Amino acid sequence: MEDLTSKILSGDKRAIAKAISYVENEIPHSTELLKRLYARTGKAYRIGITGPPGAGKSTITNCLIKLLFDKGYNVGVIAVDPTSPFTGGALLGDRVRMSESGMLKNVFIRSMATRGSLGGLCKNVTEACDILDASGKDFILIETVGVGQSELDIAQTADTTIVVLVPESGDSVQAMKAGLMEIADIFVMNKADRDGADRIVSTLKNILHLKEPVENKPEIKVLKTVGIKNEGIEELFSEILHLKNNLEKTGMLKNIRKEHLHRKILDLVNNRLHLTFWDEEKKRDLAEKIDEIAEKKSDPWTYTEKITG
Amino acid sequence: MEDLTSKILSGDKRAIAKAISYVENEIPHSTELLKRLYARTGKAYRIGITGPPGAGKSTITNCLIKLLFDKGYNVGVIAVDPTSPFTGGALLGDRVRMSESGMLKNVFIRSMATRGSLGGLCKNVTEACDILDASGKDFILIETVGVGQSELDIAQTADTTIVVLVPESGDSVQAMKAGLMEIADIFVMNKADRDGADRIVSTLKNILHLKEPVENKPEIKVLKTVGIKNEGIEELFSEILHLKNNLEKTGMLKNIRKEHLHRKILDLVNNRLHLTFWDEEKKRDLAEKIDEIAEKKSDPWTYTEKITG
Repeated sequence: MEDLTSKILSGDKRAIAKAISYVENEIPHSTELLKRLYARTGKAYRIGITGPPGAGKSTITNCLIKLLFDKGYNVGVIAVDPTSPFTGGALLGDRVRMSESGMLKNVFIRSMATRGSLGGLCKNVTEACDILDASGKDFILIETVGVGQSELDIAQTADTTIVVLVPESGDSVQAMKAGLMEIADIFVMNKADRDGADRIVSTLKNILHLKEPVENKPEIKVLKTVGIKNEGIEELFSEILHLKNNLEKTGMLKNIRKEHLHRKILDLVNNRLHLTFWDEEKKRDLAEKIDEIAEKKSDPWTYTEKITG
Repeated sequence: MEDLTSKILSGDKRAIAKAISYVENEIPHSTELLKRLYARTGKAYRIGITGPPGAGKSTITNCLIKLLFDKGYNVGVIAVDPTSPFTGGALLGDRVRMSESGMLKNVFIRSMATRGSLGGLCKNVTEACDILDASGKDFILIETVGVGQSELDIAQTADTTIVVLVPESGDSVQAMKAGLMEIADIFVMNKADRDGADRIVSTLKNILHLKEPVENKPEIKVLKTVGIKNEGIEELFSEILHLKNNLEKTGMLKNIRKEHLHRKILDLVNNRLHLTFWDEEKKRDLAEKIDEIAEKKSDPWTYTEKITG
């Protein structure tokens, strides 16, 4: 454990990979490892990249990896992949394209499966980021392929969240409906050379102008990119740096991270309460009583009151 | 309370609306009401309707309402609307179009906001369905506008889940990535008169054929509709009835509902454990210690172990 810890702190790729597997599989010692690494976290800037399917998130992520590498930064990447239960991870095709960047020194790329979007909420993404953070990364990119809970998880660990849209993903009102407005710090209109891009960018800007300004929170920018041509990536990174500096200067970064920490502790406590509560006896009781409840001889609320005493 | 209960059981629209507001706002008496109604639930068939933004879910829902009404069924509709925090429900435009159907006798339509997709998970949708169920509805349609957690919630209360796609929503592989394959019992390719629809339908069918059959679970069908022309709706309803009869005959419906009940009890218990645990003293303790943890003098895991004893 001590050996693994020091190897991670020195940036050893194999040690990092091993440690992420530990937290992904929740092996008993992973908590001990996280405790040891925790004091060394906080230096990496965490960037979430999300948006509807097909918007080109992987492409934008790849462009950012390349740019960050060219500027001499140490980069970690976590790609959250909701694996379909009957393909079991075979859909990682997008990630394969990353292997070119993955071979580069100073870049660590890792896919994490959600193992079925119902329930398996990929809750250890934050922990994987903690490991990368402690290993000396300057930037951590967290990309979610797809939509759903993983988006919310991203917003709970990222310092800045980028929402990637395309002209085809429908007008910006749809983006609002999908709740993306709530989590976006930057909007990226990718494939901006296509028809209709400008119209959607201006609609989006108009909607954002209607938003009441939040104290200390910078205006949400809408940027245009053409990922496959590497266009607009430099501007995107400038905006990220601008936000980062702004959050650091105003002390907002500390607040954001404290909020994330608060949420994390609530989750850890909930998890522990749940595990402690449902001992063998209680599980057996529920298994016995559930038929009665299903047959309406009792009801779930009365049962809950009884079993929680 | 007794008066409200009997009014709901008799199908009184105002009583139903009031009761849904009670559970939506979690007023203290709502649990008592749900307990009283519970024995009378189980008759309504619950149909979830979901899919990416812009696929035409509202249109399909409206068509189904009309068809069910024409066939003499009692219909309840819950539309889950993720409200953006800065528009506060103003995006209910889609619902307005429903008012025509809403005026019809034997149809009850209600929008429920998610109040910010982060955290506010619209957890009382199931309870609203219970109220409609007890009030004597034959079918309950639960529509989610948008994507995210609400989709997962739907799958946890619906007997059958319909995923609506459009040719524009990208190829079917994207749908798999988005985790929609996991929750779909029926796929509907809406706007099927557009270019590319047939190609996507066959890709989707091919992928579904690769799926290993689940015992007692019928094959997932892919149906084509043109919602605005009311085309394919009769076929969709036939398939729903086919699935319903099948689930009833094989006893699978009982199993599905028992699984939902199990999940519901776990949620209720979790909620109660959380509320009981975080008393004023513990909240104060966390508020005091969080700065130390943020400054790395302690860590979230050690703190959690300490506070949960």
